Amino acid sequence: MAAMSARVGEIAQLLGGKVVGDAELVISGMAPVQEAKPGELAFISNKKYIGQLKTTRATAVLVSPEVATLGAPPGTSLIVLDDPYMAFARLLQFVSNAESGPREVIGESPKAHVDPSATLGKEVNVHPFAYVGPGAVVGDRVDLHPGSYVGKNAQVGDDTILGPNAVVHHDCKVGQRCFLYAGAVVGSDGFGFAPDLKTGLHVKIPQRGITVIEDDVELGANVTIDRAVFGETRIGRGTKVDNLVQVGHNASIGRGCFVVAQAGVSGTAKVGNGVTIAGQAGVAGHLTIGDGATIGAQSGVHADVEAGEKVLGSPAFHGPSARRAMAVFPKLPELKGRIRDLERRLEALEARVGSTA
Amino acid sequence: MAAMSARVGEIAQLLGGKVVGDAELVISGMAPVQEAKPGELAFISNKKYIGQLKTTRATAVLVSPEVATLGAPPGTSLIVLDDPYMAFARLLQFVSNAESGPREVIGESPKAHVDPSATLGKEVNVHPFAYVGPGAVVGDRVDLHPGSYVGKNAQVGDDTILGPNAVVHHDCKVGQRCFLYAGAVVGSDGFGFAPDLKTGLHVKIPQRGITVIEDDVELGANVTIDRAVFGETRIGRGTKVDNLVQVGHNASIGRGCFVVAQAGVSGTAKVGNGVTIAGQAGVAGHLTIGDGATIGAQSGVHADVEAGEKVLGSPAFHGPSARRAMAVFPKLPELKGRIRDLERRLEALEARVGSTA
Amino acid sequence: MAAMSARVGEIAQLLGGKVVGDAELVISGMAPVQEAKPGELAFISNKKYIGQLKTTRATAVLVSPEVATLGAPPGTSLIVLDDPYMAFARLLQFVSNAESGPREVIGESPKAHVDPSATLGKEVNVHPFAYVGPGAVVGDRVDLHPGSYVGKNAQVGDDTILGPNAVVHHDCKVGQRCFLYAGAVVGSDGFGFAPDLKTGLHVKIPQRGITVIEDDVELGANVTIDRAVFGETRIGRGTKVDNLVQVGHNASIGRGCFVVAQAGVSGTAKVGNGVTIAGQAGVAGHLTIGDGATIGAQSGVHADVEAGEKVLGSPAFHGPSARRAMAVFPKLPELKGRIRDLERRLEALEARVGSTA
Repeated sequence: MAAMSARVGEIAQLLGGKVVGDAELVISGMAPVQEAKPGELAFISNKKYIGQLKTTRATAVLVSPEVATLGAPPGTSLIVLDDPYMAFARLLQFVSNAESGPREVIGESPKAHVDPSATLGKEVNVHPFAYVGPGAVVGDRVDLHPGSYVGKNAQVGDDTILGPNAVVHHDCKVGQRCFLYAGAVVGSDGFGFAPDLKTGLHVKIPQRGITVIEDDVELGANVTIDRAVFGETRIGRGTKVDNLVQVGHNASIGRGCFVVAQAGVSGTAKVGNGVTIAGQAGVAGHLTIGDGATIGAQSGVHADVEAGEKVLGSPAFHGPSARRAMAVFPKLPELKGRIRDLERRLEALEARVGSTA
Repeated sequence: MAAMSARVGEIAQLLGGKVVGDAELVISGMAPVQEAKPGELAFISNKKYIGQLKTTRATAVLVSPEVATLGAPPGTSLIVLDDPYMAFARLLQFVSNAESGPREVIGESPKAHVDPSATLGKEVNVHPFAYVGPGAVVGDRVDLHPGSYVGKNAQVGDDTILGPNAVVHHDCKVGQRCFLYAGAVVGSDGFGFAPDLKTGLHVKIPQRGITVIEDDVELGANVTIDRAVFGETRIGRGTKVDNLVQVGHNASIGRGCFVVAQAGVSGTAKVGNGVTIAGQAGVAGHLTIGDGATIGAQSGVHADVEAGEKVLGSPAFHGPSARRAMAVFPKLPELKGRIRDLERRLEALEARVGSTA
Repeated sequence: MAAMSARVGEIAQLLGGKVVGDAELVISGMAPVQEAKPGELAFISNKKYIGQLKTTRATAVLVSPEVATLGAPPGTSLIVLDDPYMAFARLLQFVSNAESGPREVIGESPKAHVDPSATLGKEVNVHPFAYVGPGAVVGDRVDLHPGSYVGKNAQVGDDTILGPNAVVHHDCKVGQRCFLYAGAVVGSDGFGFAPDLKTGLHVKIPQRGITVIEDDVELGANVTIDRAVFGETRIGRGTKVDNLVQVGHNASIGRGCFVVAQAGVSGTAKVGNGVTIAGQAGVAGHLTIGDGATIGAQSGVHADVEAGEKVLGSPAFHGPSARRAMAVFPKLPELKGRIRDLERRLEALEARVGSTA
């Protein structure tokens, strides 16, 4: 739990919110609304959870104006702002940064390996067993954790962190303020072969392009983003990629997307900005996914998706329709029986009508 | 194949079983019942495979009392016990341990890195390029294989093994007798962001909790278990997690579960004890899966599952019902045709009955 | 983009093709047909893309005899050969190899670790933080990139490359000219336990077998191929495995297969030669998949597949039938309504016929 000490009024001022209730109460930590104890601050971002305002033991809750119309329960103060979740996130960042203190600079470990032709920025940490290849350019305040790898002529922007054993292959570019978690791999060869089905000895297509990771991107643990055959594979600014996601060669993912764990985006797919791809979903190659589209969990997308559209299912189609079809699916055996029953009754009726005709 | 040399009677005594047939036959190895050669010992755990007792070339077979009622085939002895698979496993462990001899202690490699403030137990092996961070506590007889990583203030219990490049992040706790296979990642940040859809620059929710791996857990190669936003993500005692599985932040998985390869458990899901989650299945966030439940392969679970229930499908529902619906699915085009046919015939009949009325 | 300089006629001669148009045009690069600029060479392998021949800006295009019947568009020469994609691949390899020059030999880095009892071939590169265990045998011209691991008594064939943090466990065998990308894991323990449901403390089945990777195999980033319980898990010659694929213990995959990203092949499955397993598909344990079969994306295979068969769906069945059933699926709510309508109308008719009878 976050340790802190501030009055409700001070927090409201920091966040630009309005206090309903006692502004003098002291907050010493933050927690989810259902787990919060007295002294802690929570948030309710969704009207759906409005009922939790009555049962929370939190001393203060960040709420939207809509939720605030309920009024503050006894002993709990409200801080009213437009986006309580965002405010909670910013406050938590503030507290976390205060707690962890200034970034520790250890410099280049004698147990690391930095090629003499590589360039390191200011205050870079190169931990033991991290590797920086020839011609690589590493920006200021970068952290290269143990076992991480920056290939030949690769670039890593300022304030970026490579977790343990994260890999950036040769010539690839990673922007500023990115976080590549443990085991993430940027720029390994795309899956391209000219099939020789006679011999089974397929001929590899050299993957001559690169991967570009723009600023403020997170790549989860053991994610794989392939390099392009020509040109580039690209992950847009601010996009967040969860663990074990696969992105194929020459795919591009726009800005501010969420790609949830174990999803896969095939080669040359073009994903717009602000797209959500839920867990274990797959997008086939060469497709275009419009801005703001949402792809449901475990969906298999085999056709272009319009901007703003929600799709679901494998193969995926219009989400609300998919939900309705999925709701009928369990009734298939019953429907089959009803069809058979109809056939029998109709046959009997046809026989009677025929005989009476 | 396991090398050994023991008489059938000796093995029966070791395992607490009863011999049917010649107790003096000599066993020199172990193998699956269909591949076993003379001199080898096999097992039949499932009545379904009872027919293999007639065709096996094994010199001895571990069988249940039920299978033993068939009697021993000529030249093959039976060892009768309640759980032949368990007995086979224990015997194989016994043989494997005998063969591999006492654990080799190499100590701390000069090519490893152990922070001076870390604590190592007795007879710990720290292989080249393994990293132990500040304040970490590593128990007795732990093996840290090359490239493995124990973060700041993390704890690793006695007799636990970290495979090559396995990662335990800061403050996380791994119990005793665990095995983290190559590339497994414990405690990287959960996937939590306050979305800023205007700018696409989502604000990260600091993930302040930890991950706890209880005793006797196995985590397969390249598994990812995220740390909690607050509190903890937890994997219960004796649970076995296969390769490439994802577990989200604040999820908890109970004791003695099996989570098969490429399955995913989303954040804050609560999985009970003795649950089986089959390969490539997904469990959505915030759900409760009761003790002893079974989730079929590739299933997508979007609602709570009762204790002992078996579910299947995406979305998942009652397993036997799902199997029946899945069996009808291929007939959909035919059913559609039958509906159209019914409509035509009914229309014709309505016309006739109308005209005859 | 590939840098080169050659006349169309020279390239045709190198590839064994026939020029249609100007053989004297100079080619200075290669690119996809839609992106190619003047001076570049492209290919059209599929009749489907024949229209692109009219709009391409490429100076030369590799085409099949069928496509060549259209004739060369103004300013573009054609090189006619049987397999334009294969020719493009070979030319690109030729150019890439010419550009990258002879392989650089750095030998054994002092920051690497090679056990004194290991054997290294000629001109092996052992990069910093690579590990070669006791008794391991590494062939000629092998590249062991930073953080890669060759376990005790493992074998790695000539001209094979282990990417950063790739792992070959003890006793496993990797053939010649293989490429194991970053984080790929060969030979970690299979997922085998004798379940003890009373205590939840399942007993591990020691995994005593090995994994064999034949010649010319590629294993993508963070792939996991488990070792066998007895005997071996095997990946056949020339098979290409994409990122994040899982192969269970004792599975065998034949020669010249494609296994696309995030697919999973369960234990003891037997996959033939020339099989394609598309992305995120799963093959259940103990099944046989015949030569040349194709398994569609996200399919779940629960029964044997005949040679040459194409299957699709979860559970998977005959591909064309599956496509037809999938096309009906969205109409389920409508079909249900039509059944209800039929029932009402039939009931009404039965009442009328009954009354008129």
